[in-house]
Order: sequence, then structure tokens, then C-alpha cells
Amino acid sequence: MKISIERAALLRAVAQAQSVVERRNTIPILANVLIEAEGDTVTFRATDLDIEVLDKAPAMVERAGGTTVSAVTLHEIVRKLPDGALVALSEDSASGRLTVSAGRSTFSLATLPKEDFPVMASSEYATNFTAKAQVLRRLFDKSKFAISTEETRYYLNGVYMHVADADGGKVLRCVATDGHRLARIDADLPKAAEDMPGVIVPRKTVGEMRKLLDEDDMDIAVSVSETKVRFATPDITLTSKVIDGTFPDYTRVIPQNNTRKLEVDASEFAKAVDRVATVSSERSRAVKLQLDEDRLILSVNAPDSGAAEEELAVAYGDERLEIGFNAKYLLEIASQVDRENAVFLFNSSGDPTLMREGNDTSAVYVVMPMRV
Amino acid sequence: MKISIERAALLRAVAQAQSVVERRNTIPILANVLIEAEGDTVTFRATDLDIEVLDKAPAMVERAGGTTVSAVTLHEIVRKLPDGALVALSEDSASGRLTVSAGRSTFSLATLPKEDFPVMASSEYATNFTAKAQVLRRLFDKSKFAISTEETRYYLNGVYMHVADADGGKVLRCVATDGHRLARIDADLPKAAEDMPGVIVPRKTVGEMRKLLDEDDMDIAVSVSETKVRFATPDITLTSKVIDGTFPDYTRVIPQNNTRKLEVDASEFAKAVDRVATVSSERSRAVKLQLDEDRLILSVNAPDSGAAEEELAVAYGDERLEIGFNAKYLLEIASQVDRENAVFLFNSSGDPTLMREGNDTSAVYVVMPMRV
Repeated sequence: MKISIERAALLRAVAQAQSVVERRNTIPILANVLIEAEGDTVTFRATDLDIEVLDKAPAMVERAGGTTVSAVTLHEIVRKLPDGALVALSEDSASGRLTVSAGRSTFSLATLPKEDFPVMASSEYATNFTAKAQVLRRLFDKSKFAISTEETRYYLNGVYMHVADADGGKVLRCVATDGHRLARIDADLPKAAEDMPGVIVPRKTVGEMRKLLDEDDMDIAVSVSETKVRFATPDITLTSKVIDGTFPDYTRVIPQNNTRKLEVDASEFAKAVDRVATVSSERSRAVKLQLDEDRLILSVNAPDSGAAEEELAVAYGDERLEIGFNAKYLLEIASQVDRENAVFLFNSSGDPTLMREGNDTSAVYVVMPMRV
Repeated sequence: MKISIERAALLRAVAQAQSVVERRNTIPILANVLIEAEGDTVTFRATDLDIEVLDKAPAMVERAGGTTVSAVTLHEIVRKLPDGALVALSEDSASGRLTVSAGRSTFSLATLPKEDFPVMASSEYATNFTAKAQVLRRLFDKSKFAISTEETRYYLNGVYMHVADADGGKVLRCVATDGHRLARIDADLPKAAEDMPGVIVPRKTVGEMRKLLDEDDMDIAVSVSETKVRFATPDITLTSKVIDGTFPDYTRVIPQNNTRKLEVDASEFAKAVDRVATVSSERSRAVKLQLDEDRLILSVNAPDSGAAEEELAVAYGDERLEIGFNAKYLLEIASQVDRENAVFLFNSSGDPTLMREGNDTSAVYVVMPMRV
């Protein structure tokens, strides 16, 4: 293999590759990126055996072929090369080295044979549809904070993407929960997505896929089977196994009859929660909300270190209510609100509380209360 | 005590205080800041028993007095209050609490009696002089990277500030070294500083003092005794014990007869070192310099991961030389060069190398070679 490629294109590809490879792994070749040149294209492939990312870039291919080198080292090198450099990659099969050169810099990197690189088996995908990058971004960005980190509940370690019935008909829905809070985000159902099997997209895949979604109007090709999901732009294809488990029936958790309505400026609310939580000990971080006629008092009482209280002018017309929450959970859901006021719907101090943005039911959040 | 103070003034004072207090300490009151109000001034005092910082700020004092509260908690609270807020601090001796209020936020913090706060004994200072902030900043900024972190060589855990003889007469000099590299920075001797005893200013003091030096032309009052050093602006006084030890005779380490001169663009040099070091294993990071007629080849050879080489056009007229250095040390000294080319003076591949900026001998660096 012998190619010349622009630094910017190379950097983008190896950045994506080095982020997929696991830093600590016992199989040496998994630390490597597979580089293959053919025609006027070079492909970069990296995997952790669960996720595979494939990046295509234009290059001048002088001699076709392929090899594998450390993704992290190659990324570091390319990152440090000057902007606008033309980078030559040249494989010397005799020495088993890949030479990387640009300007007056020359690097010689150890390789492993491309035949040993584990390429993910190709699959049949039952469902194939396209969605705008901004639609997918909203679905995953607004739900991922609620993904559980408990390994024992592995079926909660991702975002459950599926087709669901909403008021206006079928929707593409993402749900994540860790048992303490839940996010349910809906989008219009893309064409040809009706029969999509529900899949749990793992946390790491959500993070890697997110990097494909920076251009609002780009069409993303989504393919889904029972065991895999694939997201593709014209240049990058991300394939991932999905979590092999059953996502619990979340609908039972979403309160239907919460009627006590609080309307509050989300940013003011978040700042106030953050301030009063300052005095609480790291562990509990419980914030008490006291609601009364158009008035909300947030308070924290930490016997050792102190107490804090703050009053906010709000819209609330129901009877007096006292309810406690984990400050971190309140901050996280309040930060999802972009445009309008946050609307909280309470039942009693022991019941789950629902939060949404204004009257928009396409993004709802549920948070469990804490005893305070 | 009962006072009102502007958030900005309060924030500056408690930020300085919380940075001096040690995060982990077994004496509870050392986590606190001592706040004392009198006349139209409030003072904030924090200490770790080695360093004491005293910050004065104007305030409306309704009731004089004093108390101590957690520096970290108070800082967090003030940081989160809105810009421009007026903050009221009010001590309730009955409950032993300090109430902090601003707008609709109220905090009540646990206090400890001010009588228990360890105030550093005042001292006689043999030497008192003033220096511009930018002069002190240069002396310490350019030397502190070489401070040793080895606790067994405690006398190297700081910057040795003393009066020395240089070519043009007496100078104020700062020296730091860890045995592998050394920095020697000179400034014009301020008036009244001739008889200053040499003191080793501890690493933490250098860091805290640095925060006083942001305004170039501010006069900093420096006081020095055999055991303490004090840096003061009109508002902030930082007092610190100095390291009780003897700084080694560094003059023997500085080569006098290095004649092989290399002149190189410091920034180009640093970038090249950084690039070739990419392939080396974390531990050694040895970079080899090969010098020949106006040509410098930097190279790294790491048998496991690969090799790298880069050529730089330089000014060098002496005989061929090969010499190795720790990449990190080279990067650190090269980054001290601001205006002109870096000038390296070598002797042999086994001898210490000297580096300075152009012909300026007021800042010189010595670095030990490594076998490569």
C-alpha cells in the first residue's frame, strides 16, 4: 500500500477510529486501525468487537493494499502535523512497518497483518430508513442522560429506540431510564420505519453515533435488525450490536393522572436548585420543594454543614405540596428545556413527577421523589 | 457581625481563601475562612499553617465582629450567586450560624469560633523592598517548572530566591532544579534588596503568589526574613514559611565552557520534538539530536511501537554531535522562549547542555542529557 492523503481527511478518520478502540484490551490488533486503499479511496476501520466504524476518504493511491497500525499513535501523529500537510502512508511488507511522512517528518510504525483484523460479519437488516441528523440528535441527546450505569441491569445500559403509539399516531421513540428518572422522546416516524424491531442502543454507540450528527440537514441512513443497528453518512458507517435483553415496560412508570401543575422558568429553576444544593453533603443532595399559591420555596437542610433556602415566583394554583428530589436529577431534566417554561405535574409527595417543556408532549421526563 | 458586600469583592476574597485551605485536613478549623469586620472593611483570612492569605475588601459594616465558616462552601455559594448581587453576611451567635443572603436566596452555614483560628505569628522582616508584578511574574514563571517533586529532597521543592553576582553587578535571582534540569532567572536588583537572605519559596506559595501578579505595573511589597517571606498588594497579603534547608550550590552545575552553538526557532523545535516523541513509550521518551552543518535531525527509536525522524534547518557550525534528551524537558525549556531563537550550547553528549534565549543571559536553562 502506498497513498497520499490530506491531513484533514486523515485526521477525521483516525479520530473516529481511535475513539472506538478500547484503551485497555488483551487482543493487540483491537488497538489498531485497518487501513485499506483501492481505486481512489482509502478506508479506515476500527472495532471493539461490539462497535465497528468504517470511514472512507479520498486519497491518491499509488499502490493498493492494506495494513493495520495503532489507532492512538497514528491519531497523535496526525494531530501534531501542521495544518494543510499532505501525508504519505507507505507500507513496507519486508520490514512490516508503515512509513508515515509529511514535510520533513518521517515516522515508522509497527504493523499487524490485515488478515488478522476482525471484520464484523455483515447482516441482513429488516428495516432501512433515513432521518435528518438533527432529528436523531434530539432523540438521543435528550434521552441519554437517563441511561443506567448499573451493570447488573444491563438492559438499561442504553437507549431503547422503537416505534410507539402516541396521540397523533405512530412515532419513532427513544426511552432511557435508570429506575430513578426516565426520558421519553418522540419524533415523526420516518418512512419505511413502521416495522422496525425495538432495539436497545448501547451507551458507547450513542456517544460514537453522536459524532456523525453535527450537520443538521444531513440525511442519516439507519438500518436495524434484531441484533444490530447501523448509522451511515456518505463517508462514515457505524455498525453496532444492540443490547441482547428486554427493555422493561416503561409505560407503567409514566404517570397519567398527575394534575398539580407548576410552571417555572427552567433556567432560573436550575440555578436556584444548584445554589441551594451547595450546602448539602455530597451523598444525598436532597432538595425540598414547597409549593404554595404561585410560590416555590427550594430548600436544603444538611445538619452538619448548614441550610439553604430560595424562593421563586412561579405559576401554581393547586393545594400546598412538599416534595423532595435528588438535586442532580432536577438539574439534568431542567437542562433539557430549551425554549419554553418547564411544566412539572405532581401527584403526591410519594409519587413520580412528570416534567415537560410547555405543552409539548414529544419530550417528557419522569423523576422519582426522595423522602426529605 | 453583620455586613453587606458586593459579590465580586467577596468572590475574589473567598476564591483566594479556598485555594489556600487544604482539601484534606484533620483540624476542622483549617477548612474555614476567618471573616472579620471592622470600620468599613472586612478581612478574610485562610491558612494551611504554612501559608496565610489575608484579603481586605470594602463593605458596609452594620455590626462589627468575626466568625469562621467553610471556605469551600462559601466560595461555591458566592460563585453561584448572580453577577452584581449584594451579599449580606450576618452572624447569629445564639445559633452559631452565619446567614448568607442575596436576593431571594438564604444560606445558613455552620461556624467555628474565631478564637480557635490559628493566626500566623507576626515576624520581623530584615528586608523590605518593592518590585513590579511583571518582574516577579517573570522570575517565578520561568523557573517554577524545574521545581523538584521529590519529597526526600525537600530543599529542592521550591524556588531559591536570592541576591547573586552577575556580569553587570548584583541581581535578584530565582533558581529551581530537580537534578535533571535547572532554571536560573535574573532581574535587576530592587532598591533595598541588597541584604536579603536567600530563601527557598515553596511550590504552593509560588502558585498562590502568582495570583497576586496579574496587573503588570502593580507594585508588590516583598518582605523577607530567614524563615518567612511575604508578598503584598494593597488588598492582599500572602505570608509563607520558607523551606528550612540549604539550596545546593547550583553554580557548579551551570556549564561555563560549552562552545558548540546551535540556534533554532524555539516554536518549530518544540513542535518537532513533540511530533517525534509521539512514537516513544511513555517511560523513557528519549529524543536523539544529531547535529551537523546547519542541520538538526531529531529522532526517536522505540523498538516496540516504531520510529520517527524529523529534520530542521538550523544554524550550527561546529563538528558533528549526537546527544539525547528527555522529550518533556526539551519541550518545557523550549516553551520558555518568547521572543528570539533558542540558543543551545553543547559540550559533549555526556555533559549538561545550556539553553538561553538569543544572547540574553538573564534567563538560562540547563538540561542533563540522556544516553540514547
